Amino acid sequence: MRMVDLIIKKRDGHELSDEEITFWIDGYVKGEIPDYQSSAMQMAILFKGMTNREIATLTDRMEHSGEVLNLSHLKGVKVDKHSTGGVGDKTSLVLGPMVAACGATLAKMSGRGLGHTGGTLDKLESIPGVTVAIEGERFARQVNSIGCAIVGQTGSLVPADKKMYALRDVTGTVESIPLIAASVMSKKLASGSDAILLDVTVGEGAFMKNMDDARTLAHIMVDIGNRLGRNTKAVLSDMSEPLGLAVGNALEVKEAIAALHGNGPKDLMELCYTSGAIMLKQAKVVKDYEEGRAKLEEAIKSGAAFDKFVKMIEAQGGDISYILHPEKFELAKNQIEIRASQSGYVTSLNALEIGVSSMKLGGGRETLDDVIDMSAGILLNKKVGDHVDKGELLATLHTNKEPEEYKPIADDVKKAFVIVSEKVTPMPVIREIIEK
Amino acid sequence: MRMVDLIIKKRDGHELSDEEITFWIDGYVKGEIPDYQSSAMQMAILFKGMTNREIATLTDRMEHSGEVLNLSHLKGVKVDKHSTGGVGDKTSLVLGPMVAACGATLAKMSGRGLGHTGGTLDKLESIPGVTVAIEGERFARQVNSIGCAIVGQTGSLVPADKKMYALRDVTGTVESIPLIAASVMSKKLASGSDAILLDVTVGEGAFMKNMDDARTLAHIMVDIGNRLGRNTKAVLSDMSEPLGLAVGNALEVKEAIAALHGNGPKDLMELCYTSGAIMLKQAKVVKDYEEGRAKLEEAIKSGAAFDKFVKMIEAQGGDISYILHPEKFELAKNQIEIRASQSGYVTSLNALEIGVSSMKLGGGRETLDDVIDMSAGILLNKKVGDHVDKGELLATLHTNKEPEEYKPIADDVKKAFVIVSEKVTPMPVIREIIEK
Repeated sequence: MRMVDLIIKKRDGHELSDEEITFWIDGYVKGEIPDYQSSAMQMAILFKGMTNREIATLTDRMEHSGEVLNLSHLKGVKVDKHSTGGVGDKTSLVLGPMVAACGATLAKMSGRGLGHTGGTLDKLESIPGVTVAIEGERFARQVNSIGCAIVGQTGSLVPADKKMYALRDVTGTVESIPLIAASVMSKKLASGSDAILLDVTVGEGAFMKNMDDARTLAHIMVDIGNRLGRNTKAVLSDMSEPLGLAVGNALEVKEAIAALHGNGPKDLMELCYTSGAIMLKQAKVVKDYEEGRAKLEEAIKSGAAFDKFVKMIEAQGGDISYILHPEKFELAKNQIEIRASQSGYVTSLNALEIGVSSMKLGGGRETLDDVIDMSAGILLNKKVGDHVDKGELLATLHTNKEPEEYKPIADDVKKAFVIVSEKVTPMPVIREIIEK
Repeated sequence: MRMVDLIIKKRDGHELSDEEITFWIDGYVKGEIPDYQSSAMQMAILFKGMTNREIATLTDRMEHSGEVLNLSHLKGVKVDKHSTGGVGDKTSLVLGPMVAACGATLAKMSGRGLGHTGGTLDKLESIPGVTVAIEGERFARQVNSIGCAIVGQTGSLVPADKKMYALRDVTGTVESIPLIAASVMSKKLASGSDAILLDVTVGEGAFMKNMDDARTLAHIMVDIGNRLGRNTKAVLSDMSEPLGLAVGNALEVKEAIAALHGNGPKDLMELCYTSGAIMLKQAKVVKDYEEGRAKLEEAIKSGAAFDKFVKMIEAQGGDISYILHPEKFELAKNQIEIRASQSGYVTSLNALEIGVSSMKLGGGRETLDDVIDMSAGILLNKKVGDHVDKGELLATLHTNKEPEEYKPIADDVKKAFVIVSEKVTPMPVIREIIEK
C-alpha cells in the first residue's frame, strides 16, 4: 500500500477502506508517513468529505493511537460533556458540579483556549492553587468521592490527534467537518466515559457558522459515538453572541459561582439545565428530562451543586476562600467603560469580535506559547434583545494593558454592538437537541 | 504574511496576488515554508484552479528561483520544443536536426523517462559515448557551429520545479493543470530560447487523457509564454497509440535514424513536418508553414538533416559509426513475437499498456533510481487502422529478462491490441494547432 495512492483515491472522491485509513493513521503516528502526505490527504478530505463509516474508522484509529482510559473501576455511569468552543462558555464549571450533585459521575478532560475561544483549564487555573494535572489514583479517588473532576488530557492520550491538529492548524484544514468530528470524538472516546453529551456551538463565535454545518457535525459525531458503543447525544447552542455576560478567565469563574448560587445569566442557566437533564438521563439517574431538570433546579436551590464545586476545587488544590468570597479575585488595573452612542435595541453582539477583543486585552492566547492574564476580559451589560439608552453602559473592559493598546480594542467592542430602533427577539440558547 | 492564510484563500476559491505567490515560491525554495504547507497549497490549487495571471506569476517565480540562461550570444532565433510526454516519442531526435538543417537554432534541454513515458536524454545515451552533460562554452560552441544541441538541464535551473515536482509526485497533485503548465513553462523559459513550440500529447499514453484537458493546458501554456515575452505555440498530438513503431531507447534511436533518411513511420514524419514548419516560422526562417514544410522535406531528401544529426552526436561525444550503421546497436538476447489470434482491423493499441510493458521489459524506470536496459523495448508491426490476418505478427518484444518475467508482459502487449472486423480509420497524429 502506498500513501500517494490513498491520497489520489480520496482526491478522486472514492471511499477509503478500513485498512487504508489504518495504514494512514498508524503510519503517520509512527512517523513512517510524512507530514506533507498527511496534509495533502487532509486537504483532499476537506474537499471530498468522508462517509460516516470512514469517519468512525478514522476516529477509532485515532482513539487507539495511544493510551485509552478505562474508567470501569469508578462508580456509576460516567458521563462526559464537550463543547466545540465559544466565547464566554463556562458551562462545564457549572454543569459538572450540578450533575455530580444529582448523582451522575463526570470525569472530564478539558482543553485550553486558543484564539477567540476560551478553555476550561485556563478558567480553572485562574483560581489560585488549582491544578489540572491530576492522573491515575488521585483522579479515581476524586471522582469516586466527589463525583466530578475536570483535568487536563494526559500526554499519552490520542497522540494522532495532537499531531494531526497541529498540522491542520497550519495547512488550512481545520474547517473539515469529518476531521473536526474525528478529532473531538477520538479524544472523548479515549477518555473512557460511558456516555457523552456534545454541545455543538453555532454562530459567529463558533467553528460552525451556520445551522446546517452545526447540524451535520452533530449528527456525524452522535453517529460515531453510538457506532463505537457510547450513548452519545448533542445539543446545538447559540454562539452568535457570547454565552452569559462574562468573557475572560477569572471573570467567568465568578459568573460560574453566581450561576451555582442560582444567580447566573438566563442563557447560561438554561444551557446548564437542558444539558444537565440530558446527562442525568444518559447516566440513568432520572427517567426523563423533566425529572432531570427538577433535580438540577433543586441541587442549585439547596446549595448541593455549589458544595460540589467547592469540594472539586479543594480536591484539585484550589484556595476555596476565592470561591466562598469571589470578591477576593484581583481585578485588572484598568476598567474601561463602553457606552452606547444611541438608544435602541441590541440586534447583534458579535461573539467573534468580543472573543478576539478579550484575547487582545490579555485574556487569551494568539499562539499556544502566550501567557494569559487571568484578570483580563470583558463584562457585558447588554445582550441581544436588551433595550439601551444613549450613554448607557454596554460593557466594561478589564485589562492591565496601556491606553494605546486598549483604545483600539475599545472601539472594536463598541462596534460589536449593533443597535436598532425596532424591538428585537433574542435567539434561544438551545437551538436543537440531537439524539440518535 | 502567513502561508496558512494563503492556503485558506486558495482553498476558498480566491485569486492569489503576485506578492502572495512570490511569498510562497521564494519561501518554499529557501526552506522557510515547509513541504506540508506547500503540499496543502498544491492540493487546494488542484481543486480550485488558478487564473492565467496567477499561473503566469507562478511560472515567472519558479523560472527565477535559480539560474536563468541567456542565449542571446548564440546566433539566430533560438527555438525550443517540448513534449508533455508519451510512448515512442522520439520526435526531438528527428526534429532538432531537421530544423537546424533549415537554418533555425535549437538549444534544447531535455528530460529523462519515468514510468510509461520515455525521455530524450535516455534515448540519446543509448548511442555509445554520447554525453548530455554539456554546459557553458562547449554548449554555445556546439549550438553556434551545428545549430542544434540536446542536453540535460543544468542543476541550477528552476530549483523550485525540482522541489515542487518531487512533492507533487508523492502527494497526488501531479494532475493539476495549472501546476503542470507552470512546471513545463518555468523550465522552458529558464532555458532561454526566443520561441517555444509545445507538443501537448493527448490520449491513453499521455498525461492529458482527453481533448478538453489537453486544449485547456495548451491554451494556458501558450498564454503564459506570450505573456512572459516568448513566441509560443502548441500542437495537440495523438497519444492514444504509441508514436511510430519503436518503443524503447536504442530501438527508437534506430527509428529516428530511419526517419532522418525519410523512411520513418507516417505518423512520426507527419508530426515532425508539421511541428518543424511551425518552428521554422517562429525562427523567422520562412514566411509560412507551406514554405517551412517544403524546406524540411528538402532537408530530409538531400541528407542535410541526417548530416546535422551525425554532427550533433559527434559533438556530444557519440560513436557515429552507430548512426551510420544502426545494425551495430546490440540487440537484447530475447525477441518474443506476439501474433494475432484473429483476423480483422486494429481498432485500438493502448499506448499506456505498451509504455508500461516496455518499462517492465527493462526499457524504462519505475523509480528514478532504476537503471535502464537500452536494448529493451517493443517493436510494433501493426497500428490502429491496419488490417491483420490471424497468426500475423503484431509486435516483437526485445528484452534481456527471463521467460517467467516476460511472459505476463507478452500477454499484456497482446491485450493492448484490440482487433475488430469492421474497417477502422486511425486518428490523425496532429489533432489541433494552437496559436495565440
